[in-house]
Amino acid sequence: MQQYFVSGKAEHFVTIKDEASIKHMFSVMRLQDNDKAVLVFDDRVKRLARVSDRLTHTFEILEELPDNAELPVDVTIASGFLKGDKLEFLVQKTSELGVHTIWGFPADYSVVKWAGTKLAKKTDKLNKIAQGAAEQSKRNRIPTVKLFEKTTDFLSSLSGFDRIFIAYEEAAKAGENSTLARELALLSKGCKILFIFGPEGGISPSELAVLESYGGLKVGLGPRIMRAETAPLFALSSVAYVFELMP
Amino acid sequence: MQQYFVSGKAEHFVTIKDEASIKHMFSVMRLQDNDKAVLVFDDRVKRLARVSDRLTHTFEILEELPDNAELPVDVTIASGFLKGDKLEFLVQKTSELGVHTIWGFPADYSVVKWAGTKLAKKTDKLNKIAQGAAEQSKRNRIPTVKLFEKTTDFLSSLSGFDRIFIAYEEAAKAGENSTLARELALLSKGCKILFIFGPEGGISPSELAVLESYGGLKVGLGPRIMRAETAPLFALSSVAYVFELMP
Repeated sequence: MQQYFVSGKAEHFVTIKDEASIKHMFSVMRLQDNDKAVLVFDDRVKRLARVSDRLTHTFEILEELPDNAELPVDVTIASGFLKGDKLEFLVQKTSELGVHTIWGFPADYSVVKWAGTKLAKKTDKLNKIAQGAAEQSKRNRIPTVKLFEKTTDFLSSLSGFDRIFIAYEEAAKAGENSTLARELALLSKGCKILFIFGPEGGISPSELAVLESYGGLKVGLGPRIMRAETAPLFALSSVAYVFELMP
Repeated sequence: MQQYFVSGKAEHFVTIKDEASIKHMFSVMRLQDNDKAVLVFDDRVKRLARVSDRLTHTFEILEELPDNAELPVDVTIASGFLKGDKLEFLVQKTSELGVHTIWGFPADYSVVKWAGTKLAKKTDKLNKIAQGAAEQSKRNRIPTVKLFEKTTDFLSSLSGFDRIFIAYEEAAKAGENSTLARELALLSKGCKILFIFGPEGGISPSELAVLESYGGLKVGLGPRIMRAETAPLFALSSVAYVFELMP
């Protein structure tokens, strides 16, 4: 069944205001009166609802649904700004894989520069992609996307995490493949994890030193070189495997 | 350093014949005499080589390199035919993540139909993508891509695996999240694993019954619904995490 995020509080009758949702509900899916959908409000509880009046875009809430599709740990993925539409790809796929927050930052080796209105537009686009992916994956919340214009703002956000992992290709080349699994085994549900990834050229040595001074642990992700937009999917899948599938 | 797969046996001097490799080496990368590259022949050993004559596209092999970037288990990913360029995406990303073989098959819910020359062309394109991704990921072998025109041929290939997993969304919905981790823990390096994924609409109930009769185990991959091209990346990442990063 189709799922939609609706901002606000769940009332018995709810009128949808968001134009994109209205379009998808009544033009794309062609919902009729009494057709059902799942609505998720700010409290992140899924609720079964039926169309009570399609002309005014009004639903009646029928019942709360118990299912929770959120990862039991909060994972933030920080990526250096990537070329082309790779951040769009990254946001869509990490949203399907359960990411909590996605950050982009201007890394030393980032080729693209975003600032001002361009950065705001990109952020807006990425948040819409996150919402669409979260709806399709039947999640209980929409991942937050934030692009940092300045490195200093990015660095001052590196507090409050239980672990900060820096994906560092040179660590993998040196055969460092045990830190991630060792550290994940020490963490518990409810913890906050940050993974930092470089752009296409990776993390620079001076960036690495700064990130380590903020408590970041450099980790290898195995013997194969992954593209900048692929490595975060591997890291997030590993966390989901450990916290959701392993006994 | 750039890596290239070269078909044949490693001799002391090797002349490159493959037009795509020649173009990448001497037009894109503009290799000059004495510039170095890594060449991987049919024996899957990486060798450091130097350009001994760029006009005749000849390299001199300098030494064998010990690094092995292959997953210690053979994973085959079988996916129902997917719409658009999603198989291209799947081949590129699973090649980065260490897949051994990629199969496509005409699933009950596959919308696209490929046969004859169209299927041959698609196969050729996908094999080229696998080669490019394997070179970029510094792998020791190129994953094989095969598209089955007939379901019967696909089914008759389902032998010789130590485990066959069927990614089944309904299993995940029913809370079945423990089979994959339990089974992976029982497997050892060197084993052969097959994962079967449906197309966009998933595996049909009758397909499931047939695949189970071939020994397939249905597994849930967690509480979030992943797109058809994303779920294989999650499965492969999980296997790599277990066999390469876990102690």
